[in-house]
Amino acid sequence: MKKTFFKLTPSKEVFEIIDKFPQIEGSEKVEIEDSLGRILSKDIYSPSDMPGFLRATMDGFAVKAKDTFGASPTLPAILKVKGEIKMGEIPSIRINDGEAAKISTGGMLPEGADGVVMIEYCHFIDEDTIEVERAISPLENVMQPDDDIKKGEIVLRRGRRIRPQDIGALAGLGIRKIEVFRKVKVAIISTGDEVIPIDKEPRPGQVRDINRYTLSSLCRAVGAEPIFLGICPDRFDMLKRTVEKGLEISDTVWISGGSSVGVRDLTLSVLDSISGFELLVHGIAISPGKPTIIGKVGKKPIIGLPGQVSSAFIVAEVFLSRLLRRLSGEEFLDVDTTIDAIMKRNIESATGREDYIRVRLIKEGEKIYADPVIGKSGLISPLVEADGLVRIDMNKEGLYKDEKVKVIPFISK
Amino acid sequence: MKKTFFKLTPSKEVFEIIDKFPQIEGSEKVEIEDSLGRILSKDIYSPSDMPGFLRATMDGFAVKAKDTFGASPTLPAILKVKGEIKMGEIPSIRINDGEAAKISTGGMLPEGADGVVMIEYCHFIDEDTIEVERAISPLENVMQPDDDIKKGEIVLRRGRRIRPQDIGALAGLGIRKIEVFRKVKVAIISTGDEVIPIDKEPRPGQVRDINRYTLSSLCRAVGAEPIFLGICPDRFDMLKRTVEKGLEISDTVWISGGSSVGVRDLTLSVLDSISGFELLVHGIAISPGKPTIIGKVGKKPIIGLPGQVSSAFIVAEVFLSRLLRRLSGEEFLDVDTTIDAIMKRNIESATGREDYIRVRLIKEGEKIYADPVIGKSGLISPLVEADGLVRIDMNKEGLYKDEKVKVIPFISK
Repeated sequence: MKKTFFKLTPSKEVFEIIDKFPQIEGSEKVEIEDSLGRILSKDIYSPSDMPGFLRATMDGFAVKAKDTFGASPTLPAILKVKGEIKMGEIPSIRINDGEAAKISTGGMLPEGADGVVMIEYCHFIDEDTIEVERAISPLENVMQPDDDIKKGEIVLRRGRRIRPQDIGALAGLGIRKIEVFRKVKVAIISTGDEVIPIDKEPRPGQVRDINRYTLSSLCRAVGAEPIFLGICPDRFDMLKRTVEKGLEISDTVWISGGSSVGVRDLTLSVLDSISGFELLVHGIAISPGKPTIIGKVGKKPIIGLPGQVSSAFIVAEVFLSRLLRRLSGEEFLDVDTTIDAIMKRNIESATGREDYIRVRLIKEGEKIYADPVIGKSGLISPLVEADGLVRIDMNKEGLYKDEKVKVIPFISK
Repeated sequence: MKKTFFKLTPSKEVFEIIDKFPQIEGSEKVEIEDSLGRILSKDIYSPSDMPGFLRATMDGFAVKAKDTFGASPTLPAILKVKGEIKMGEIPSIRINDGEAAKISTGGMLPEGADGVVMIEYCHFIDEDTIEVERAISPLENVMQPDDDIKKGEIVLRRGRRIRPQDIGALAGLGIRKIEVFRKVKVAIISTGDEVIPIDKEPRPGQVRDINRYTLSSLCRAVGAEPIFLGICPDRFDMLKRTVEKGLEISDTVWISGGSSVGVRDLTLSVLDSISGFELLVHGIAISPGKPTIIGKVGKKPIIGLPGQVSSAFIVAEVFLSRLLRRLSGEEFLDVDTTIDAIMKRNIESATGREDYIRVRLIKEGEKIYADPVIGKSGLISPLVEADGLVRIDMNKEGLYKDEKVKVIPFISK
């Protein structure tokens, strides 16, 4: 790294840099009930067919389909009812030519039967005889033994973020534990001589450590595990020792800078002094969040965040949440999850940088408006009022009232 | 309730019925670090001004603004530098007319100063004298003591789902514990003689209990607390006792029915026999999910879900997730969070009911396609393959290939 190098990196390039970080290694076994949101570390193969037997999908009568061929309301098939299939049991009945058995949805087809006629097409003509007024084809209204899941097939692939239905499928197959990637560990370091722990009463000139809480909560919201390494005074040796400790015990180190230019310089010289450190981004062409540093030691990303609370948070929302997904091993599709809205007011923006405007969503009738929440980047309250962000392109001078925009919702809604 | 009443309720009316359920009562204190996603039960007022002192928002020199009036590059103001403000300390310096002090972003303004000139407009002409080539107005580049949050103002309102930035604001104010609504308790009952626990090996005719796992994971995904009351055999007295127990210990009871018509009838007669039970919905005009029952005992919703795993899950995704948000006390804005996509294939739909089609999202270049995942409602695998649902309106006969659609993403992505 050369100190002289200080060219702002456009956000598109920052995303490309982030996407190149490899996923972490290491996995653990969890009970499926505790696996929601975790990332699967191995493909899961089915140990058996599901449901495993020929199963009715309608209430009606289990029959031999060929016995219904040609049946119609005017020329019904006449079948002898041999009894009723009990749920959850292997039927003791056997269906021969010209016979039927009453069956409920989910019941197992008796031997000899190969389909189910829906109850509405069957009419008793005496106690043990029905008229069937409609033909079925073989396997109609039944689920075959491997219709849901086939033995040996891949049920869930490595990289899947586990959802309720995935847990359901595992439950159905009797798989009670799965192997997932361990959680990404994020070492969080706060710096700044003016920053104090939140249980202390600030004297004039001091502020409580907000970034620790916003950043660690954001980590939790995306399934990562924050590790707080304390508030580090603005001293080279102490910060260096803390960053090195972070590299030892975590997968990525985030230093939320004191807001002064002195501390920003300090962070960079500390990183520069760490063996193997490679600087990737020194300043992003966005506002707020410009003074962000991205580097790495080996595979581990080191992030220097602005001290300004809104700036640090917006950089974390936009870039670091994606970094955490990459590190976590999650396979995901980039889809547009923005919310369509209409600008409530004009807003100016400087060209040559991308702006992220905090907006509140307002509903008027069926219309959703995005109302900019104005406030300096050192304030937390505009973020509290906001529901999301609107990105203003590098080459745009601003947004007009009534212009259509896409609101990026916050990760944790 | 009359057994004769069986008119399908359109989904719009179902939502209206759900929205009328009152929120649960009862709250608890939690540490802010454990409050992510919880619902605030009381407005929170600020105990103090934040930041609490006049704070620099830029690196530069703290000055009396009036000393810079009229300053320009050709006619700079000349000021005497009295020293540098240390971060986190009450400045010992006092600024008199014609004086300045070096200050960093976040530093406390010294007495007498009322603004900050950015460093780029100041040049040292000797060791303790600067030229200022630009005028500032009073309070320029500073944050006033109550700029972020004013003492006594409401910081967060009751009903807020706590997000990372909200935790940050609380941290900044030194508020370490907050009162949140307790979690909504959902009693989950599985029924069906064919349904067995997942640690048992199913005999032919038996299936493992999938609904328990999909439904309880969905509850957890929206912040509710599932309580599983076991698999109940298809017997009136036992089911009645279990439902009554559920009503005692939880805020809402969900019975996931055996899939046979017999069990559906049983659920309804059990509910009918419970003192104070009022039937609100007996069948929803949707597919899958039609045989859904919604009723209440006092304020508590009782839900009879179809036994079919996909049907039960889709009803829970579409309707019950909203019910849980209502019960939780969350105040939320209805915004469209669907994902724009293009139909990959034609799909038919019966008119007179709303269809929820499971779709997989596919990215081709910049285009996102919604590819229907076909499969019977008794199967779990199509839900595992799917990324969301596409709703087909009651009066539409289907969707065409290349038609634009809005995909409802699953709650847990």
